[in-house]
Amino acid sequence: MKLVKNAIGRLVPSEVNGEKQTPYQGIGKHRPTGNKAKPQISTCADYPDDGNKVVKNLKEALKKAGLKDGMTISTHHHLRDGDVLTNQLFDTIKSMGIKNIRWFPSASFPCHKHLIKYLEDGTIHHIEGSMNGPLGRFTTEGNMNGVGVLRSHGGRYQSVQDGEVHIDIAVIAAPTADPFGNSTGDRGPAACGLLGFALADSEYADKVIVATDNLVPFPCYPWQIQGNNVDYVVEVETLGDPSKIVSGTTQVTKSPDRLLIAEYVADFFEKAGILKDGFSFQAGAGGTNLAFALILKEKMIAQNIKARFIRGGSTKYLVEMLEEGLTDYILDGQTFDLEGVRSMRENPGHVNTSPFTSYNYHGKGNFASIIDAVVLGATEVDINFNANVVTHSDGYLLHGIGGWQNCLFSKCTILAIPSFRDRIPVIVDEVTTVTGPGELIDVIITERGIAINPNRKDLLKAVKGTDLPIKTIKEIYEEVNQICGGAPAKPKVNKDKVVAVIKWVDGTILDSVFEIKK
Amino acid sequence: MKLVKNAIGRLVPSEVNGEKQTPYQGIGKHRPTGNKAKPQISTCADYPDDGNKVVKNLKEALKKAGLKDGMTISTHHHLRDGDVLTNQLFDTIKSMGIKNIRWFPSASFPCHKHLIKYLEDGTIHHIEGSMNGPLGRFTTEGNMNGVGVLRSHGGRYQSVQDGEVHIDIAVIAAPTADPFGNSTGDRGPAACGLLGFALADSEYADKVIVATDNLVPFPCYPWQIQGNNVDYVVEVETLGDPSKIVSGTTQVTKSPDRLLIAEYVADFFEKAGILKDGFSFQAGAGGTNLAFALILKEKMIAQNIKARFIRGGSTKYLVEMLEEGLTDYILDGQTFDLEGVRSMRENPGHVNTSPFTSYNYHGKGNFASIIDAVVLGATEVDINFNANVVTHSDGYLLHGIGGWQNCLFSKCTILAIPSFRDRIPVIVDEVTTVTGPGELIDVIITERGIAINPNRKDLLKAVKGTDLPIKTIKEIYEEVNQICGGAPAKPKVNKDKVVAVIKWVDGTILDSVFEIKK
Repeated sequence: MKLVKNAIGRLVPSEVNGEKQTPYQGIGKHRPTGNKAKPQISTCADYPDDGNKVVKNLKEALKKAGLKDGMTISTHHHLRDGDVLTNQLFDTIKSMGIKNIRWFPSASFPCHKHLIKYLEDGTIHHIEGSMNGPLGRFTTEGNMNGVGVLRSHGGRYQSVQDGEVHIDIAVIAAPTADPFGNSTGDRGPAACGLLGFALADSEYADKVIVATDNLVPFPCYPWQIQGNNVDYVVEVETLGDPSKIVSGTTQVTKSPDRLLIAEYVADFFEKAGILKDGFSFQAGAGGTNLAFALILKEKMIAQNIKARFIRGGSTKYLVEMLEEGLTDYILDGQTFDLEGVRSMRENPGHVNTSPFTSYNYHGKGNFASIIDAVVLGATEVDINFNANVVTHSDGYLLHGIGGWQNCLFSKCTILAIPSFRDRIPVIVDEVTTVTGPGELIDVIITERGIAINPNRKDLLKAVKGTDLPIKTIKEIYEEVNQICGGAPAKPKVNKDKVVAVIKWVDGTILDSVFEIKK
Repeated sequence: MKLVKNAIGRLVPSEVNGEKQTPYQGIGKHRPTGNKAKPQISTCADYPDDGNKVVKNLKEALKKAGLKDGMTISTHHHLRDGDVLTNQLFDTIKSMGIKNIRWFPSASFPCHKHLIKYLEDGTIHHIEGSMNGPLGRFTTEGNMNGVGVLRSHGGRYQSVQDGEVHIDIAVIAAPTADPFGNSTGDRGPAACGLLGFALADSEYADKVIVATDNLVPFPCYPWQIQGNNVDYVVEVETLGDPSKIVSGTTQVTKSPDRLLIAEYVADFFEKAGILKDGFSFQAGAGGTNLAFALILKEKMIAQNIKARFIRGGSTKYLVEMLEEGLTDYILDGQTFDLEGVRSMRENPGHVNTSPFTSYNYHGKGNFASIIDAVVLGATEVDINFNANVVTHSDGYLLHGIGGWQNCLFSKCTILAIPSFRDRIPVIVDEVTTVTGPGELIDVIITERGIAINPNRKDLLKAVKGTDLPIKTIKEIYEEVNQICGGAPAKPKVNKDKVVAVIKWVDGTILDSVFEIKK
């Protein structure tokens, strides 16, 4: 495997799973040429006149779709850790004696541990998609046949749109669907909110199978996936466990340090001039972010300020802000709790977005860069503001990229992070894996102070004279090293074996994950 | 121009405007091969980070879009005879000294008479799109430089999707839009309801310009056209005259003959077993159809029957049925009156459809074939059930195809027509122009009786023993000839000059319109 240095000096392979790759060139530097992928032309003559595309079961649908060794099969992860369908799908594929599948999920979760045996026995050749937990560990230890490819939500859309990844068969878990294939995630026993992560799959895959545990008469409306892109519909007993479908991290933090970070973030919004009528922001569903949203909300009420829009994943906290008239809209990319799902279904103030509208970098603009400020997390940040969200300091790949890379394009990107976790510094000299280039990361907010990227002279000027605890990133780094007794030990890795690559939003390779020496 | 006989014996050119053509092969016989059109890949690096794509004016937008001689420019016709923008667009193109444009509207209306001078001076080379009224007359008299190409709404989507027509620049009149290009037709001073006819244009054109007279802050939501497909946004003073935007034909007929036809149609629904709980139907906005809808409504109320869905264009009559709980949904393709526009905006029972979902024959099925029965019109029908909607018996091309061809795929296609108009028979031995093949037309309902296509043995059986005035088409034909004093004179045409062709839903050529000898 030949490694080359990319534009931020990271070693990345020039070829991955037999396909030539472009190393990362810098923000906006890699210019796509050519045309989008071009799906096959279908004809209504091949589809039932009455619109009923229901077939007996998943096996029948896979057979009709022409499943063969070596194909690419895609799934979405809106059911998160409650997903039952994907495991059944691969049980079925295994039972059909099929080998060497490239699995192209939008993400995998601990529940997909079940699939390790199929990675071992060659049913699945490799995974392209975020690997949260066990599959990431399996991969980092060098056990996967191929190289993992991690993409952001927008990067996944881009890769399919641009023809980098050709999906042979997409299997879409649909909490409600009609026999024509119109599908939605906002209702049904396995309601998960949106199905946007399956949009590219439905548009570009050769064959599209919708699996549902809630078949309704045509038309299933509103729909999120269009039946006109669907080949077969399958009824299954259950898609998943509703209690695990929504995100687990929807409790406001109780840690004094995290609460302090949340307060600093809200203060920064106010004092840097972000908080003003008609503003917009995005904050995730972690405990610190939820605390921040609550504090910001108090400030908005006190100052009579209304947002134009908030980007979700929706949680009950955002829903309350919508219902109390503190924002005109929530732009949802996914949905993090059941209150979010309910509100999405009922309140026209929810704007359903997708990786196409929000995140695709190879589009005519996207929503991510329009947002005034985003508050994100990271596993590590370095003194050049480069950040990591996929590996830990021990080198293990345990998290996906999600929409994180895409969100970095906001007008002000803030990482709200503790300066250390379990006595391991989060602020480091060099991150284990670069997931986001420092030039896009504007502000680091920790419990020990706020560091502003020196490139953002406008922000430095805006906060001058305020009581915000502004420090340099170097100052925070040194404080933390003192507290923790030094930098974390670098992981012992096999530099000859790349186990996974991190794609940038434009399809180039930003960094590599190397095999851990056990 | 070489003419060949197609599968229903009509003479059609093997080449049109320099491009090779496939003659009509029969229903479902022409199988598309290959792949869909593949638009260029864009990059966000070329679009403003703040999402503001507004440019000074239309000329500026056309310049930035790279307007050149010979390009294909598309527009939509949702503003109907109230459209002001398209005329301004070509005034601008003329002022830029551009020549030989292929104009690709979804339809043209009498208001576009203004463009005849541009057809004469070479600004516009030819029109591909329905030509209602003056432009049709101009074309039939042999005055257009190229050959007109008429497509159904679904055929227009198909032609763009399949790459038969490559749109260089789409100009989309948007009654409401935001600076990013998200657009809708359901609100604003020029509200026209849907914008679905511009969907293909937005997805496949190289450059997309949105023109609006109602610019709102991001996000314009709900949107019908996605800003992610838009290059430039232009503010204009007015898009059109709202009083002419909606269809003029929304008055219930007062003619006793037409009322009788409407009664026969409703009776046929009842006695042929179409009228049952959960059924679906489509009826247009003409006077006879509206009368039919009102009679059917009474039957539904009396028999406690509810439809699953009605396909629009929405009118106040359909809206009332929705509001009174007589149908779960209206599936709108366009909107025919202001009550329809209002209801679409307010009532979630309206399903916004598009030529992609409803009509595209080169898709994985479409909605048209799912409908239990459609009631349509025609200018002529012949004894083989072939029908014409584009020309009159005098040979003049005066109407577009609209969704008419696409609707023929319903489970029961009914033409509700007077047997003669102005003493000219409508039931003829051979139609002037075949717009729909007889094998898809199931029932002809006239004031003189009902003729069922002999192929539909099931329908003949269903009505046996009822009091419906069933006749053969030949019987009606002969009666009418007697009343009118014989068949209409055949138009004197120049068989060496095809002025326009009628495409079938699959892109093949169904028939030709010949130059009228003056």
